[in-house]
Amino acid sequence: MTAAAPAPIIALLTDFGSRDWYVGTMKGAILRHCPQAILVDIAHNIPAGDIGGAAFALSQCWLEFPSGTHFLVVIDPGVGTARKPAAIRAQDQVLVGPDNGLFGFLDPYEAREISSPTFMAEQCSNTFHGRDIFAPAVARLAAGAAFETVGDPIDALHPTPWPEVLYEKRGATGKIITFDHYGNAITNLHRDRVIAHYPIGQLHVSLHPDRMPLAKTFADVRPGAPVAYFGSGGYLELAVNGGSAEATLALRRGQTVELLL
Amino acid sequence: MTAAAPAPIIALLTDFGSRDWYVGTMKGAILRHCPQAILVDIAHNIPAGDIGGAAFALSQCWLEFPSGTHFLVVIDPGVGTARKPAAIRAQDQVLVGPDNGLFGFLDPYEAREISSPTFMAEQCSNTFHGRDIFAPAVARLAAGAAFETVGDPIDALHPTPWPEVLYEKRGATGKIITFDHYGNAITNLHRDRVIAHYPIGQLHVSLHPDRMPLAKTFADVRPGAPVAYFGSGGYLELAVNGGSAEATLALRRGQTVELLL
Amino acid sequence: MTAAAPAPIIALLTDFGSRDWYVGTMKGAILRHCPQAILVDIAHNIPAGDIGGAAFALSQCWLEFPSGTHFLVVIDPGVGTARKPAAIRAQDQVLVGPDNGLFGFLDPYEAREISSPTFMAEQCSNTFHGRDIFAPAVARLAAGAAFETVGDPIDALHPTPWPEVLYEKRGATGKIITFDHYGNAITNLHRDRVIAHYPIGQLHVSLHPDRMPLAKTFADVRPGAPVAYFGSGGYLELAVNGGSAEATLALRRGQTVELLL
Repeated sequence: MTAAAPAPIIALLTDFGSRDWYVGTMKGAILRHCPQAILVDIAHNIPAGDIGGAAFALSQCWLEFPSGTHFLVVIDPGVGTARKPAAIRAQDQVLVGPDNGLFGFLDPYEAREISSPTFMAEQCSNTFHGRDIFAPAVARLAAGAAFETVGDPIDALHPTPWPEVLYEKRGATGKIITFDHYGNAITNLHRDRVIAHYPIGQLHVSLHPDRMPLAKTFADVRPGAPVAYFGSGGYLELAVNGGSAEATLALRRGQTVELLL
Repeated sequence: MTAAAPAPIIALLTDFGSRDWYVGTMKGAILRHCPQAILVDIAHNIPAGDIGGAAFALSQCWLEFPSGTHFLVVIDPGVGTARKPAAIRAQDQVLVGPDNGLFGFLDPYEAREISSPTFMAEQCSNTFHGRDIFAPAVARLAAGAAFETVGDPIDALHPTPWPEVLYEKRGATGKIITFDHYGNAITNLHRDRVIAHYPIGQLHVSLHPDRMPLAKTFADVRPGAPVAYFGSGGYLELAVNGGSAEATLALRRGQTVELLL
Repeated sequence: MTAAAPAPIIALLTDFGSRDWYVGTMKGAILRHCPQAILVDIAHNIPAGDIGGAAFALSQCWLEFPSGTHFLVVIDPGVGTARKPAAIRAQDQVLVGPDNGLFGFLDPYEAREISSPTFMAEQCSNTFHGRDIFAPAVARLAAGAAFETVGDPIDALHPTPWPEVLYEKRGATGKIITFDHYGNAITNLHRDRVIAHYPIGQLHVSLHPDRMPLAKTFADVRPGAPVAYFGSGGYLELAVNGGSAEATLALRRGQTVELLL
């Protein structure tokens, strides 16, 4: 054994669930092409087809991993349609998956369409590109294949379907973009950008017609009480201490949340 | 460090769920007996006791893994009864679990009953053979123990509880054998065997009294529409583009599906 | 490459669920601090905030793992409050997580509060100590940092919130402490301690006002019938053969279960 490079990490994020063969099939295909890969499960229960939520999850964890980590991200409701299979380099990480919005938040990036036959299975199904394209591609890249040989450049990745924040004199208007497993609602209002516009100590949260104070953490209120705070990723979250804000406050994705003076 | 064989892969498929200690206990027991093992989770949320569905999941992924992979498959509603603990060799893979139908689809195979004390825990519970028999057995095999020393041969594995397909002049009659996480219904009608009997372009799908066209993929129909196609494993699937066929079409396991001329 | 120590195992137990970025973020942070770590998922779907159930799950699997295993256990409903981040050594294993009752069952142990900045992220959020404290701490310990440098000793860990068993002349009174994924109810009545008090063959199970026989395993009764037996961890369990005792018998956590003469 030579003093080889450390074994490549391949981190997996999908909506494949945890009761089927899909995850195992994809892992098997990776290991067949890159036996030394270290597979790390991020999550496989992204809500089915939720590209915006998956992109958010990816955005929250991809830079926590060591430089040089490979990511296999397959939330692919349009498998078999024209969306391109993509391989992307950004900040020393490599990401592989369908170009359907999952990667549109990356900036800057270098992207290529996976089209070289050496990065795919010999026969390619219409419904499982995770097995037939994305797994072989990420495995070959992790095993050392040159990124440039994947296929032609993609000039612009498909944009991530996140709503825009409106900054006005009276305050900022955002939306709920996803819910986590605890029922916390996560908005697109980021602390750094809010601070750039307003004196943060003077803001309150408006969930029309209700008002909520802006706290430091959910533990700042009594159990069962609603609360808003900037969460661990910097985004404004609505929570209920010890409960589910989604259920208790009957929140829904896309709902407007305002930070008002 | 010598130029040793690559670390053995042990892939895990169970109905243990993802909220209990069962999976961790089994992984701990494997690592105690084979510290160099690389553990790979296939799935742990096989519906409780669903031997036919688990066998289908296994059949879809076991050959994707590299040659020499070990599989630990524990869906064991009859733990503590007479079903035999089994170790099986087939196509250069090794599989370990209860002989209750999980492995009946393998052909050809070489099977042995796990009975040698060196392949078990010293004390064996009545309810958790995953920890006490299957984990030590697969770990010792992965660590290099001779397959022949596991125990006596099993002449015939318990058959897998999959329904038979009927091929008649008017067409083929199959059944729904499982549902995946997306609510797609997967039947036992395999493209290769259907093609051997009928001109495939002349077939339509009958889900009595409804008819469905035979398409290439779910994306061939508008969102919300039902569709049938041969899926990534070659089996006829019923789906709803962007939805759950199981819920939308009120399908149930065992329901008859026909491919008619 | 020198004949280094084997790669350290870090086993993960959380209530983070399997649809969010939390697990991946924590794994990424571990691998950044300890690239050679072998990550093993125990479970991530511990019911949200269920400290007693998580402690039970941990107690059932922590000694199955090889000596020297590191455990990262994050069920942390009080994140951001005064509970201490803790690192613990017990029986050659190392455990890291919030001192909120998760580890109170360990005996004997050596515990320290994680307070040295070298064991934390540079910036520490109020809501995700898994990423900012526990992951870096367990990773640095697994990578070889001296346990004594973590911080000051903790004299007494927070007790685990498990109810006490009452041993009286007429029998033992316990409670249901958790349910597993199959709906089996697990009580705090342990066989070894029951045997020390009573002739076990003369006991029956009382679930007021119902009586249940004490069997060897759930397969001792016909499908659909309720049954009680000492499970694989030694604790009295209530089950329904092929079904869910929790649903069928309408059981609830904390419910009284008696073993009477």
